[in-house]
Amino acid sequence: MKLLRSRFWAALLVASAMTLSAPTLQADEGMWLYTAPPLKQLKEKYNFVPDAKWLEHLQKSSVRFNSGGSGSFVSANGLVMTNHHVGADDLQKLSTKEKDYLKDGFEAKESKDELKCKALELNVLMAIQDVTAEVNAAVKADMGPAVAFKARQQVIAGLEKGVADEAKGVRADVVTLFSGGAYHLYTFKKYTDIRLVFAPEKQIAFFGGDADNFEYPRFDLDMCFFRVYENDKPIVCEHFLKWSAAGSAAEELIFVSGHPGRTNRQNTVAELKYLRDTGYPYLLQRLNRLEVLLNSWAERSEGNRQKAEEELFGIQNSRKARIGGLQGLLDPKVMARKQAEEDRLKKFMAAAADSRAPHPEFDVIAAGEKKRAAMIKDITMLENGGGFNSQLFGIARTLLRYSDEMKKGDTDRLPEFGPARLASLKFQLFSDEPIHDDFEILKLADSLSTFATHFGADHELVKKVLAGKSPRERAFDLVSGTKVKDPEFRKKHFEAKTAPEDDAMIAVAKIIDEPSRAIRKRFETEVDEPKRQAASALAKARFALDGTNSYPDATFTLRLSYGTVKGFKEDGKDVPAFTTMVGLYDRSKEQGNKGPFELPKRWVEKKANLDLKTPFNFVSTADIIGGNSGSPVVNKKGEVVGLIFDGNIQSLVLDFVYEGEISRAVSVDSRAIIESLRKVYDAGWLADELQGKAK
Amino acid sequence: MKLLRSRFWAALLVASAMTLSAPTLQADEGMWLYTAPPLKQLKEKYNFVPDAKWLEHLQKSSVRFNSGGSGSFVSANGLVMTNHHVGADDLQKLSTKEKDYLKDGFEAKESKDELKCKALELNVLMAIQDVTAEVNAAVKADMGPAVAFKARQQVIAGLEKGVADEAKGVRADVVTLFSGGAYHLYTFKKYTDIRLVFAPEKQIAFFGGDADNFEYPRFDLDMCFFRVYENDKPIVCEHFLKWSAAGSAAEELIFVSGHPGRTNRQNTVAELKYLRDTGYPYLLQRLNRLEVLLNSWAERSEGNRQKAEEELFGIQNSRKARIGGLQGLLDPKVMARKQAEEDRLKKFMAAAADSRAPHPEFDVIAAGEKKRAAMIKDITMLENGGGFNSQLFGIARTLLRYSDEMKKGDTDRLPEFGPARLASLKFQLFSDEPIHDDFEILKLADSLSTFATHFGADHELVKKVLAGKSPRERAFDLVSGTKVKDPEFRKKHFEAKTAPEDDAMIAVAKIIDEPSRAIRKRFETEVDEPKRQAASALAKARFALDGTNSYPDATFTLRLSYGTVKGFKEDGKDVPAFTTMVGLYDRSKEQGNKGPFELPKRWVEKKANLDLKTPFNFVSTADIIGGNSGSPVVNKKGEVVGLIFDGNIQSLVLDFVYEGEISRAVSVDSRAIIESLRKVYDAGWLADELQGKAK
Repeated sequence: MKLLRSRFWAALLVASAMTLSAPTLQADEGMWLYTAPPLKQLKEKYNFVPDAKWLEHLQKSSVRFNSGGSGSFVSANGLVMTNHHVGADDLQKLSTKEKDYLKDGFEAKESKDELKCKALELNVLMAIQDVTAEVNAAVKADMGPAVAFKARQQVIAGLEKGVADEAKGVRADVVTLFSGGAYHLYTFKKYTDIRLVFAPEKQIAFFGGDADNFEYPRFDLDMCFFRVYENDKPIVCEHFLKWSAAGSAAEELIFVSGHPGRTNRQNTVAELKYLRDTGYPYLLQRLNRLEVLLNSWAERSEGNRQKAEEELFGIQNSRKARIGGLQGLLDPKVMARKQAEEDRLKKFMAAAADSRAPHPEFDVIAAGEKKRAAMIKDITMLENGGGFNSQLFGIARTLLRYSDEMKKGDTDRLPEFGPARLASLKFQLFSDEPIHDDFEILKLADSLSTFATHFGADHELVKKVLAGKSPRERAFDLVSGTKVKDPEFRKKHFEAKTAPEDDAMIAVAKIIDEPSRAIRKRFETEVDEPKRQAASALAKARFALDGTNSYPDATFTLRLSYGTVKGFKEDGKDVPAFTTMVGLYDRSKEQGNKGPFELPKRWVEKKANLDLKTPFNFVSTADIIGGNSGSPVVNKKGEVVGLIFDGNIQSLVLDFVYEGEISRAVSVDSRAIIESLRKVYDAGWLADELQGKAK
Repeated sequence: MKLLRSRFWAALLVASAMTLSAPTLQADEGMWLYTAPPLKQLKEKYNFVPDAKWLEHLQKSSVRFNSGGSGSFVSANGLVMTNHHVGADDLQKLSTKEKDYLKDGFEAKESKDELKCKALELNVLMAIQDVTAEVNAAVKADMGPAVAFKARQQVIAGLEKGVADEAKGVRADVVTLFSGGAYHLYTFKKYTDIRLVFAPEKQIAFFGGDADNFEYPRFDLDMCFFRVYENDKPIVCEHFLKWSAAGSAAEELIFVSGHPGRTNRQNTVAELKYLRDTGYPYLLQRLNRLEVLLNSWAERSEGNRQKAEEELFGIQNSRKARIGGLQGLLDPKVMARKQAEEDRLKKFMAAAADSRAPHPEFDVIAAGEKKRAAMIKDITMLENGGGFNSQLFGIARTLLRYSDEMKKGDTDRLPEFGPARLASLKFQLFSDEPIHDDFEILKLADSLSTFATHFGADHELVKKVLAGKSPRERAFDLVSGTKVKDPEFRKKHFEAKTAPEDDAMIAVAKIIDEPSRAIRKRFETEVDEPKRQAASALAKARFALDGTNSYPDATFTLRLSYGTVKGFKEDGKDVPAFTTMVGLYDRSKEQGNKGPFELPKRWVEKKANLDLKTPFNFVSTADIIGGNSGSPVVNKKGEVVGLIFDGNIQSLVLDFVYEGEISRAVSVDSRAIIESLRKVYDAGWLADELQGKAK
């Protein structure tokens, strides 16, 4: 059935001469493929038409950080610009006990001082080939789903193998776009010798911390520079971005070239309503609870704070992101637009349909979302461990299930115990990452309380889990009564493929294992699978309708966005597009120069040197999302005017829908980069390199 | 029906010679009436029997702070000891722009320096008379509920009037005990000229702030001293508590004499299960959400922090209290005890019942709790304003309802608009307390989101309320579009008894008014009233069963508790009963002497003077609850050994049930009071007065 529908829409695609309304794109909407850039939109709104050379130059100056971000070449000598928070992982790995580069920053004045990163891979997209026909040709109409899946994987693997060349550093990926509406073969130049050149202090890169995260106005110097080497020498770049002499101005057209990670703009209205009415509120409830729990515990001692800090930041970041997304979903104007888009697709599908082929995809998805809403709390509590928020529990359950699953054949196991996964499972399981009993008890007691509340404390399962104790007492007993904290103990049982009977934590994992597996199976068969098939059919219909007049959901591959440098209105007040350096000092002062608002020493000492009118951060209407961090912002001449590092809270709706009134991408201004390099860091040599001045 | 049942149990009470098991009191349980002290328990467990003189002395040395706490006379010259947090309100009222006594403390070395409090009333209980027979005699069998209610009020008013004497400062209250099982006429000596004598800094009184609130070990000097005057002279006390020379020791018997405010120990199991499975979890969800909202907003600027601080502290305090209570309710051992108590009462009632009089009270209450669970979210969102968390909304609704209600007769109105309430309504409505637009928008936007989530964003009512906007936009429109912020505007409409049609906030209040009134009415008639009648019948049965072998739920009247100075176990570790002064300095140091752990200047400077082994705080098994703050802790000789100021987190279950294993009352040690007065505050004169040394 899946195949048949797929072929049906493929046929439509070829003969798509139907008269239907044009896609309802918003001004400045889109994360466009370089093979189908928004030429019409740019011409109409901005009277600007980039030519092929312009596009190729920007494409080949763009860099993908495989650790999860974007960057760009900004000098002929392989200098790469990205965000401090994109480089943070490498800054941490390069730090020593004596030198904390993440916190204090780094500068290599000469080539010999540049530090080689431990496992960083950068990719540059060199060529794109449409292989949709080849991939589709390999899948025959009479194949069952499993055979079709394998056939598709085989042709893709063949296409990739034909181009990839490890010796030459050529990587090839077939990218699935429009949920299978199109397949493109991407060829990348791959670099693995990446060296750290410069980073400022974390305090200025993340100025304002969680309090100002996703907010605007902002004052962050979220930048970091690396250099790409081959054969122990900096590469010579054919394509790199020049620095704009003037920087950007309000109302100016700008472009963003980067790697948006994932969007859900093809979600149906039923899926969005599930998220709006059930998914997000429930997740927020859990995040709020955890934030309060961890925050109040962290405040009780410095030791607690260190143990909880990282997890707490992650919770706060998610909480802010979800609140922003939920505001968008609760905006009737947003939902009306999604409804209109869906109606247009439905009309198209109805017109294309014959009486023997009804198209129940929307209903299938809506029914799936209803089941999901009914099951989400059970599955969260049981299979997703929401009722057992403890690393030790996670380990105990893994050991228990591993011992059960290894008795089965390779293909009968739960996928996470499949042959291909065992190496990484072992790697995780044998890790000697420290686990803190007190922190474990705190989280486990709290989650056991939610578990009891969810099912009702009189539920048989709850009684078995609590074993006559209060959640707090039980958490203590479980954490004290398990040996899975010891990596040697884990190794022993992993190798023996056994799970000890007398371990308290393993025993509790056993209590919930049957209902947990049952709800997971129901979820997979009643929600996931029907939805996956329906979504794929819809994606193909959408592609048949709009083809390359549209853009696919984000896939962490290179995209081109565009927009205007522009402030926005919040609570009736104008928020200007630009902040300046004086604003940084004002903000710090108004916060008593404390906590996340404390300025690094150098910024205090060098204040008098600075032109305080220098623009610091700015916002634009460009269409971005997570993964775009570190993307260059360029003007019509293709010159760097900024560096993407965040979105405002209103932009968090971009996951589902583009909105250009109040959603904004937040960038570091190119002028702040130069001003601070020259006057705070005495790194004129780097500013010179960026500005193309001779050494 | 109510009357009939009431008489039935009254009859039983007289002839209660039934053989049933004794009340299942726990060791050290009880907030006992002075007219029915736990002599048997004290004799059995401690081999100590206080005589009438001992009891009278402790009773008449005890003081009620009508602002909501307890205290005691501690010198012949009318010196009264209580907590800093009990005196805080008066410390604040006595402060000036120049002198912040709440923050910095206060000392009056001489009588003339003592500051007279603005509106503080203290009461000392002088006599107790059982008037149950008189009250019951006034209520005849054939009276309907309303007539019976009035008749009871009349006889009570008459009894009070017969004893009260304004000129002599004698106050009389008939206190309803055991939900009407007994009526006692309490005669108080009333004092209204109360002067501030001494208070330490808030930083040492509340050392540890919210982080350590309800926790143990603790290091708080939560004390404050007043003096009682009559005719402009300190009174001469016949009864006051002497200071113990040695202080207390672990395992020693101690007594607490104070005014517990309210307990719910007569709740049925169904009521407790409602709280456990629905009420507390739902409230905690809302508290968590608000705490995260206010906390993250407060962190964005100092101005925000000031606006949100007070509300945030209240939320955190409630959150901690509920988490503690919920842990208790989720403890199967606690619930098993409540079930056993209930079974015992059921057995008694079944044995006493005749076939024509079934006793469905437990079922009535259980049915009421089911309805309550089904209605609680609707009523919270609508009538309790959970969906409209905004002062401006509250004012707008009051103006709207006032204009509607004033068209009705006195007795037809909602009670809050009854003739007796109009004065205080006006007082509140005309207040010019500042209201901050940004804070209002923050809270309203958040609560409108919860409102939309609760009913579902597609619900007609939600659509009307949001009017096509996102919650954030709508909140801004409502706050900007109302004039009710202006007290003059309110006055005008209050006097004209009108509600303007063109005010955005009043308009939104109007949109929800009909469904809000409807759910309130359903709640009152289907939950409140049936439960009230059933609970009253159960209370009388309970009294018939146990009479004065038990103690009534707390009523903010004088009670005697007792217990042992004793540590407890937490996570398998022993928490010792006493902390010492060295622990204070250690805790401050380990927290970097920051925030709530920052020591006052004097404590830093005078450290060398102190005997750091001096006990600071201690815990005991005494049965206390909110209202007991400031209660003296005395030994067998009736000498002061401590000053109650808190309970540990485990004690929060005491609202429902006494628990002596891990629940603890927390006191300031009498030795820390003397040591700090002499060596930190150079207030040897006050220490001398406490220790009864001649001046």
